[in-house]
Order: sequence, then structure tokens, then C-alpha cells
Amino acid sequence: MIELIGYIAAVLTTASFLPQAIKTLKTRDTQSLSLSMYSIFCTGVLLWLLYGLAIQNWPIVAANAVTLMLAGMILGIKLQAVLRERN
Amino acid sequence: MIELIGYIAAVLTTASFLPQAIKTLKTRDTQSLSLSMYSIFCTGVLLWLLYGLAIQNWPIVAANAVTLMLAGMILGIKLQAVLRERN
Repeated sequence: MIELIGYIAAVLTTASFLPQAIKTLKTRDTQSLSLSMYSIFCTGVLLWLLYGLAIQNWPIVAANAVTLMLAGMILGIKLQAVLRERN
Repeated sequence: MIELIGYIAAVLTTASFLPQAIKTLKTRDTQSLSLSMYSIFCTGVLLWLLYGLAIQNWPIVAANAVTLMLAGMILGIKLQAVLRERN
């Protein structure tokens, strides 16, 4: 039962980035997204992924691989917008 | 060393929500933030917090208490904006 709460928690925090990624891909609007947040967050998730690989914990690896893909996509679109503004 | 990577990862993914919370509090602009993302994410983080309490893992409790506070603040401002639009 306690294990199950942990699994549901992991699925929810990972899956939550899907609607944000879809919204950002569709609208390309990143005005209210924080570049610092996504830079720091993606770095943290990458470290979680490396940590999972190091301790061979596959739930940690899987959850963070998916989160990194989704949050990385959002970061990429935000970076494009920031660079476009500077030109 | 491996433990340290895990701790740095936890600090980064938690701390990343601070610049987003500050930006959102200052600008009150939530146009490009996904309501679904913050609703699902906060639910997931709450479950992580309950999971941490259940297994008495204090790093999980601390990290998720801080994240819930920051992400919950962002969700609150987004909800206000959505409700305002509907009126």
C-alpha cells in the first residue's frame, strides 16, 4: 500500500510535464515560463538519471528519463524564444 | 560520491521551482503555464510527501514539503487567473 503511494506519486510528477510540453509545443508561448527553473530542473533531473543508473534503480531511471525528455523539450523552446528576443 | 549526486539532484529539482515562483509572484503572468501540469504535479508532490512520512524518510519529506509550498503557490496564482478569466 505504501509502495503503491510512492509509485502513483512518481507517475504523477513525471506525467505532469506532458500537458505543459503539449501546451508549449502548440502555442510556442513561453513568456511566463522561468528559464532559470527549466535550466536548474533539467540539470537536477539529469543528475537523478545518473544517480538511478549508478545505483541501478530502474524506476528512478525510467521516471527521470521521461521527465528529462519532456522538460528538456520545454527548455529547448524557451531557449529558442530567449535567443530570438536577443537578435 | 553516488549519494552526493542524489542529494545534489534533490536540491536542484526542489530549488528550481524558486525562480518560477518568484517570477510568477512578481509578474502575475501565468498565460504560458499549464494548469493541468501544476494540478497533477502538486498532487504527485503531496503523495511523495505522504510516502516520505509513511516510510519516515526525512530527506523525501523535506524536499517535497518545500516543492509543494513553491509549486502550490504557482498553482494558486494560476487558479486565480483562470477564475478571473471566467468571470
